[in-house]
Parts: sequence; C-alpha cells; structure tokens
Amino acid sequence: MNEVELLARLIPTLATNDSVVAGAGDDCAVLDLGLPNEFILFKTDAIVEGVHFTQEADAEKIGHKALARCLSDVAAMAGTPTHALITLALPQEFDVSFVEGIYRGLNALAARHEVAVVGGETTANLNCVLISVAVLGTVAKGKCLLRSGAQAGDAVFVTGTLGGSLQEKHLEFEPRLIEARWLAEHCGVHAMMDLSDGLATDLRHLLKASQVGAELLASAIPISRAARLAWKLNGQQLSRSAGRTPKPPLLAALTDGEDFELLFTVESREAVPLLDAWKKRFPELGLNCIGKITSTPGLFIKDKDGLRPLTEQGYVHFS
Amino acid sequence: MNEVELLARLIPTLATNDSVVAGAGDDCAVLDLGLPNEFILFKTDAIVEGVHFTQEADAEKIGHKALARCLSDVAAMAGTPTHALITLALPQEFDVSFVEGIYRGLNALAARHEVAVVGGETTANLNCVLISVAVLGTVAKGKCLLRSGAQAGDAVFVTGTLGGSLQEKHLEFEPRLIEARWLAEHCGVHAMMDLSDGLATDLRHLLKASQVGAELLASAIPISRAARLAWKLNGQQLSRSAGRTPKPPLLAALTDGEDFELLFTVESREAVPLLDAWKKRFPELGLNCIGKITSTPGLFIKDKDGLRPLTEQGYVHFS
Repeated sequence: MNEVELLARLIPTLATNDSVVAGAGDDCAVLDLGLPNEFILFKTDAIVEGVHFTQEADAEKIGHKALARCLSDVAAMAGTPTHALITLALPQEFDVSFVEGIYRGLNALAARHEVAVVGGETTANLNCVLISVAVLGTVAKGKCLLRSGAQAGDAVFVTGTLGGSLQEKHLEFEPRLIEARWLAEHCGVHAMMDLSDGLATDLRHLLKASQVGAELLASAIPISRAARLAWKLNGQQLSRSAGRTPKPPLLAALTDGEDFELLFTVESREAVPLLDAWKKRFPELGLNCIGKITSTPGLFIKDKDGLRPLTEQGYVHFS
Repeated sequence: MNEVELLARLIPTLATNDSVVAGAGDDCAVLDLGLPNEFILFKTDAIVEGVHFTQEADAEKIGHKALARCLSDVAAMAGTPTHALITLALPQEFDVSFVEGIYRGLNALAARHEVAVVGGETTANLNCVLISVAVLGTVAKGKCLLRSGAQAGDAVFVTGTLGGSLQEKHLEFEPRLIEARWLAEHCGVHAMMDLSDGLATDLRHLLKASQVGAELLASAIPISRAARLAWKLNGQQLSRSAGRTPKPPLLAALTDGEDFELLFTVESREAVPLLDAWKKRFPELGLNCIGKITSTPGLFIKDKDGLRPLTEQGYVHFS
C-alpha cells in the first residue's frame, strides 16, 4: 500500500466537528473558530535527516527549511502565518551549537514574517535528527484558496523555476507568502497549492481535488538553472553530492521535489493582465503560464511529438 | 548542558509578536487571535518508541496516548481542545494495520472530546516510531490557568493517585479536561499544570514560574496502587516489564513520570469547600491537598523525621 492508498483509507475515519472548513487533503486545515472575518489555518510538517537534508547541511539552513516548508503551506492558502511550535528530536549525543544554529535559522525567518515561535520541545532519542513544525495562521474568509477550485478552461501558472532544488534552493527558499496574498487580492485565482513533491505529482493532487484534467505545454515549463547545469555536467559531481541520478532538465522540472513555488489556476481571460501586473509588482520573480485545465480527467503534456499522457511521477513518500 | 539550561538559552531568542499572551514555558502557548471572549491554546507533543512506549504496546493505546498527552496540556490551562494534526514517522518497513490501530485509538479519544483530526502526515524514515501531535483549543479569557499564579499560603492539590504509571496507566489515561474546566468554573484556582515528568520535577516548574516555594506533606501524597504493588512484589516482575528499577512507593509517587493528573493551587480558605464540592461532582476520582505554597523559595517535604529539602527529581529528558 502506498501513501495515497493509506491516506484514502485513513482520512474518512478521522474524527471531525462543525468548525472544520477544510480538513486533511489540502495544504493547511482551514478552521472556523468564530473570528468574524477570518479562518484559522493549521499545519504540521516534519523534515528528517537523510531525506530532507544531509548530515553535512548547515544547521541554520536546516532550521530555515523546517519552518519555511510550513510557511509555504500557509502561502498556498493565501494566508498569513502567525505562530509556530517546534519539535526537535535528536540523537542522544547532540551538539548544543547545532540546536542553537537550527533555532537561529528558523527565528530569522519567523521574525521576517512576524511569526511568533511560542514553544515546542526537544527530545533526544533517535538515531537521526527530525524536526516537526506546527504553524497557525489566518486568512480572510473570502480569500482562502483551496486546491479544489480549478475549472475547465483555467490557465495554469507556476512561480519561479522548477527542478534541481536539492542542489541548493531547498535549504534557502523564501516561502511565497507575499506573492500568494497579492494573487488572492489582485486576480481571480481559482485554486492554489505549493510545489513540494514535484509538479507532476502535485498537479495531480490539485486536479483530483478539483475533479478536472490538465494539458501542459512542455516548452512553457520554466526549468531551473540548477536542473540544466546538473544535466550539462552529466550530473557527475552535483548529482553525487545530492545523492540523485541526473535527469534531463524537463524531467527534473516535472518530477523533482522541494521546489516550493506556487502552482495556481486563473480564468483564461485573466492570464494576460495577470502576467502584466505581476511583472510590475514582482520584477525579480518569474511567472509562467504552463498549460490549461480541461474538463476531461487526466494529465497530458504537449511537446514536439504531440500530446501524450504524462506518466512521470514526482517524489513518493513511501510505496 | 541539560534540557533546562538549553531551554533557558533558547527561549529568550525566540521570535515573537503582539498576539502572544503566554509563550514557551507553560503547558500550552496562549494566543490572542482576536476572538472577543476566548484565547487560542496551541501545543505540540511527541512520543517515541523505546521512551514513551515499548514495541510490544498495543497500537490503539499508543495512538490514544499520543493525543491524550496533548489534551492533558489543554486541560492544564482549563481549556477545550478543538483540533489536532498528527505526524507519524515510521521505519521504512511498517505494518499498515499498526498505522490503522494508532488512528483508531486517537480517533476514539478525539471523538469523545469533540476534537477534529484535520490532517497531518506520515513519513517513513526512522528506525523507530515517533508520533508528534499538534493541538488547538480555546479557553475563556478570564478562566485560563497558568503555572505562574501560585501565591504564598495557597493549598496545593493533585487529582488521582501518583506513581507507577508506566505499569499500565500511561497508555490508558483519560485527560482531565472535564475536571479542569469544572475547577476553573467553580473555585478560585491560582495556578495549574499537568503532571508528566513526576511531581517533584513538575512542581518545581510551577514554583519557579510563580516565584514561590512549597512544603509537601509526605503522608498526604496519594500513592497509586500500581506503585505500592510494584514495591510489594519487590519489583521482580513488574519492574522488568516496564524496564525500571523498583522504587519505594512514596519515591515513585514523587518522581515517576506520565501521571497526567492535575496539579493546582487554591487559596487556603477554599480548600475545604473545594474537597466537599469535588466529592459530589467527581465521586470516582480522588482529590488530595498535599501541601502549601510558601513565600520562601525551595521545595520541602515533611515526614516523620521532620521537614527536609526535597532533593528527588523526576524524569529528565536529557542531561
């Protein structure tokens, strides 16, 4: 049984109550706790040594990443993160300066986004480092963006460039909080999520939640410099350090995890005005229309050989 | 550097914002998110195989315990838990029925207290099972009970009986949510917390937060049947199964962890009316006055040999 099948069995059994607007299955849980104009967002995410970072990684960057992943999930709902709790599970023999480094990294990011780190715990028992972060946030009731809102005909967009994140970006990325709130404010986004397991896998989640399909345009997918470079060097050096087999750049952009860019859909007539307004507001960050939503289910990609089903998969947590 | 020293170094560095009523250092973080009459409570807690449960433990009970510990922290503030997120980190080869058992246990407890389980994640990477739970709750603004409110002259109370929890109770305890809210509603509790690391250690945290001392009465401390029995059998069998050295019953009651009873202080003149009202409301659950708060700092215990400083310590997470 893989992760998707396991979740499909577990999710219907979960205890619930009247205050749940959106539960398991979106980037954050969305809760109505009685605030007049806002929903509460609630999310946890864990990173594990050997999976999400290597033993050699800088402690500050590990701390940054642990929190940034959760903030990226809040961004995916167009929300504002407010509070975080940190659970740090460590091997019995750990270095205090490593723990302090982790906290320096996550505190710096938290302070930049006015997130209060309100506690957590440190437990020393494992054979590797695990950091679990829980975040709270808020989102205006009319502005919360779910995965389930995509409609046939919508244009599909991604921010930034994709692939090759494990070379460096995954430890340094800035969650797209400002961009996501601007999108919710300035254009009619129908559905949004963040990219963590690779475009091919994550887009499938969005399509499933929205009960639609999509056609991607291969030539429109923004490939990162890191993914191109890794392939150019035949992956000899870079891939060894990241512990991965080199991939052709397009494949890397479609399937590499840890991009933490925004994936979203807007009504097609909004596409051009959005690109125009975006360029003025965020001149440093690329925005690309990579395809369209279709009423036919399934995920397809159009390249020089025509339209074919996209069979590639991103990161699978376990199978 | 032990856990207390590490936290003393980390806590002052944590990022914060204006909505934090109480941050790191109490049972839950207390947050003002703009609800007119309530604060939000926010807490995470993790349990690890080999520390908080053995490999032989029943999956449903492990799931129950993982959530119950967090709910006990919400009880310690006299709050009402509303939502939970579950992070399950598992060895690569895991049994789906084990995961389903964990969820059955925690769902049953959640449903009993109307807590919605709104998601989480399952990650398969470790050499042992780790479950981290994050909970949200609410508490009426005037009724939230912190550790820091104890005053000289207060009577010190505990619910239930103490010690020997690892024989069985730690996997089965019901968090004292109803009792805690009743206490906040019906009598002037000054300070409250739940017992997780043993009375001797936990009471010190409360005293430190309140900047007071305490005198315990040895004969008044309610010792559990499990702690007495373990000692009577000289711990030969029971202690081996729980992996602990047998302790004299009073020492077990003072220092064993995982009791998950409520520890609280009330003005001394409230003590007798409280005991009376409690017996009517909760005839099945013991409540005992075990000592008093003093203005002199330090923790003392009075036994047949007179008053002596209490030097015993409960569970230390790492040192």
